[in-house]
Amino acid sequence: MSTHSFQAPKGTRDFYPADLGVRRHIEAAWRSASIDCGFDEIEGPTFEHLELFTAKSGEGIVNELFSFRRAGGENDYALRPEFTPTLARMVAARAGSLPVPVKWFAIPNMFRAERPQRGRLREFVQWNIDTCGVEGAATDVDVIAVAILALERLGLTPNDVQVRLSHRAAIARVLGALGVPAEKAADAMTLLDRRDKLKPEEFAQRAEALGLSAEGVARFDAAARATQRLSEPLAALAARIGVPVEEFAALDEVRTAASRAGILDWCTVDIGIVRGLAYYTGTVFEVHETSGAERAVAGGGRYDGLVELFGGPKMPACGFGMGDVVLANVLRDRKLLPDDGATLLPRPDAFVISAGGELAEAELPRLVMELRRAGLHVRTSSKATRNVGKLLGDAGKNRARTAVILGNELAEGSVALKNLDAGSQLVTPLIGLADAVKAIVRG
Amino acid sequence: MSTHSFQAPKGTRDFYPADLGVRRHIEAAWRSASIDCGFDEIEGPTFEHLELFTAKSGEGIVNELFSFRRAGGENDYALRPEFTPTLARMVAARAGSLPVPVKWFAIPNMFRAERPQRGRLREFVQWNIDTCGVEGAATDVDVIAVAILALERLGLTPNDVQVRLSHRAAIARVLGALGVPAEKAADAMTLLDRRDKLKPEEFAQRAEALGLSAEGVARFDAAARATQRLSEPLAALAARIGVPVEEFAALDEVRTAASRAGILDWCTVDIGIVRGLAYYTGTVFEVHETSGAERAVAGGGRYDGLVELFGGPKMPACGFGMGDVVLANVLRDRKLLPDDGATLLPRPDAFVISAGGELAEAELPRLVMELRRAGLHVRTSSKATRNVGKLLGDAGKNRARTAVILGNELAEGSVALKNLDAGSQLVTPLIGLADAVKAIVRG
Repeated sequence: MSTHSFQAPKGTRDFYPADLGVRRHIEAAWRSASIDCGFDEIEGPTFEHLELFTAKSGEGIVNELFSFRRAGGENDYALRPEFTPTLARMVAARAGSLPVPVKWFAIPNMFRAERPQRGRLREFVQWNIDTCGVEGAATDVDVIAVAILALERLGLTPNDVQVRLSHRAAIARVLGALGVPAEKAADAMTLLDRRDKLKPEEFAQRAEALGLSAEGVARFDAAARATQRLSEPLAALAARIGVPVEEFAALDEVRTAASRAGILDWCTVDIGIVRGLAYYTGTVFEVHETSGAERAVAGGGRYDGLVELFGGPKMPACGFGMGDVVLANVLRDRKLLPDDGATLLPRPDAFVISAGGELAEAELPRLVMELRRAGLHVRTSSKATRNVGKLLGDAGKNRARTAVILGNELAEGSVALKNLDAGSQLVTPLIGLADAVKAIVRG
Repeated sequence: MSTHSFQAPKGTRDFYPADLGVRRHIEAAWRSASIDCGFDEIEGPTFEHLELFTAKSGEGIVNELFSFRRAGGENDYALRPEFTPTLARMVAARAGSLPVPVKWFAIPNMFRAERPQRGRLREFVQWNIDTCGVEGAATDVDVIAVAILALERLGLTPNDVQVRLSHRAAIARVLGALGVPAEKAADAMTLLDRRDKLKPEEFAQRAEALGLSAEGVARFDAAARATQRLSEPLAALAARIGVPVEEFAALDEVRTAASRAGILDWCTVDIGIVRGLAYYTGTVFEVHETSGAERAVAGGGRYDGLVELFGGPKMPACGFGMGDVVLANVLRDRKLLPDDGATLLPRPDAFVISAGGELAEAELPRLVMELRRAGLHVRTSSKATRNVGKLLGDAGKNRARTAVILGNELAEGSVALKNLDAGSQLVTPLIGLADAVKAIVRG
């Protein structure tokens, strides 16, 4: 066995308890926001038929996948690089019997065979929110609001991150108003999507190739970079780009719904948000750190053709994905994660200590199991020492809320119960000890 | 795209909300038992270097694995068929700095490229419990007790399942006392392990090949089938097999520890429990349904050479694995799972209904978001109807605990709040509504 096999494969992670504490902290915010917003959790296979992924993304995706075939088997499989095809397959399979709207969330692990870099690993966790069966801006906003609720619960504010959103219909109309011919609309969107990756002169050159005049190129450039808080009136944005405000009708519906839900301050209109994926059909959005320092925290939008693509009926759909890697980077940037993830782990309710003597030694294992059976998180020491001071030190290192000391009082059927947060101590009978501990730790 | 790609790969599962409800119910018992017993959660990569698995189990395991190589990459990887090598690698990598004992649990998904059958799938979830760094029967019992705690929380009793346990040292001594020569001890253990798979005459034939006399074969056969509740004295078992009770010294230590922890009634001595894996070194155990109807629910024991095998220091270790598939079968056999897994899903705290009118329509999205921000699980209808009776029916179908009705009282800043479990109703101001709902749903 070579030395490298003693390490996690490149781009994957070992989660020691403190690392998993951070991950579970993020997942808890995702899960609670999902449930509070009325989404039901689902999960699918970690690997799928390879065709499921090429159907949506074309053969080009194969090089980005970990694919394999069972020895002697006939089918090609791939580790899932995204969850949407699984979700669409599951909706399609039961489209007739599912209650509408389908509101599902999932927190699957996913895989990409690309070169690992900051914010991008070969295995990661991605929160997925999807609503199927309902059209309209209110639903889009419902979906965006789940993301905001989770971000809020992680301590982020509109000053830290913004939902940058646009709308395919609005973009198409703006492009038309700017003089982009209909047959060049797709090229123009691709160019918008690459806005941040191209040098200004290259961007201008390509804008010209869309058939725009010099003035048209300048206006297209301005539109591509146009952003404005969603709380501001869209007329201001339209005036800046030089198009009639009516072109923004679709975005205005989103704005009204966002206003009603009370999430305007979390949102920014960004005409340059296109989302590369061709299958989006309406609202599109990404969550970005306001400083622009990290990759997108999340991305999604409306994709009404999705379920049909995977063999189901025509069914409107809207959703997003949010990965754990970039989000953890943002939370760290904003000092919203503790230096030591271990402080996020559940604290023991009681640390049970034997002060020595035959009675205590025999009683300790029984008592520990009894308290655990009562639903308490109980730890004890495996050390040989019966030095109560040292063992209380261990209780502190374990972050225990109370210490139960089996000492002299045991002969009378009692133990010492120490509230380690308050520093107080009382002697309490063994009978009813679990309730006495609960009274301290659960207030 | 062929039709089969619209289905989950053979041997894997789609978890719709009701299915995932069952899985989460089982995982919650695993997780809470682990935490209450002082174990910290870890996780590793879903795939590892292929060598990590062949190091422990030999090249023979390759055919049971899903293995692959990244296009253009050099390393062979495999989807994990078990978690122990990952755990041992992680302990070995930080053996010098980890607090002893290392007490870790994990609930990873795992993969086997075998033919799926009842109780065995190609992807499944397995709870892993491991303690490293401490020797002794008390630690073995600590590990067994976690399993029992989880089984108890799932509603199982000692009448439903039993921990069938043995001890390698005790088996070795019993084999010696029965006349098996030392050089045949390994063969004898293999034969014990196959006890239930061989016909009686074949078993006897192989026992003879161990060099046993006819009488020795009969005694070996009796020993192989010898089981007894752990609560009974070991002397009775020794007498039945015809060996001195001293040969059971190692098992007696486990018995004493189990008695102290109060789990005797969950345990049965079973000399025929060997656990095929060669690396066990002490206590070995399996959890079985008492009827014997299903495969083993869990299996584990002490494997003191484990961490060293993966490049770490010599470090005693003990643990077990418990899969979700057999356990769910056992729970279903015992009527401990609801017919509809959806009843295991979290109930909505409030279902918000608009009785119609401009004010209600505008207020509803704001109020829903406000209640969700207050940490409440809130649902609403996407239907066009404003028939309160019909919408209350939907609230019931959603299993909501309360209904909030935006009606005529809204003009005065109030809403109707219906306790759907109690059938009572009150009018309450919008301000403070979240607290009013909490007062109902949290008692």
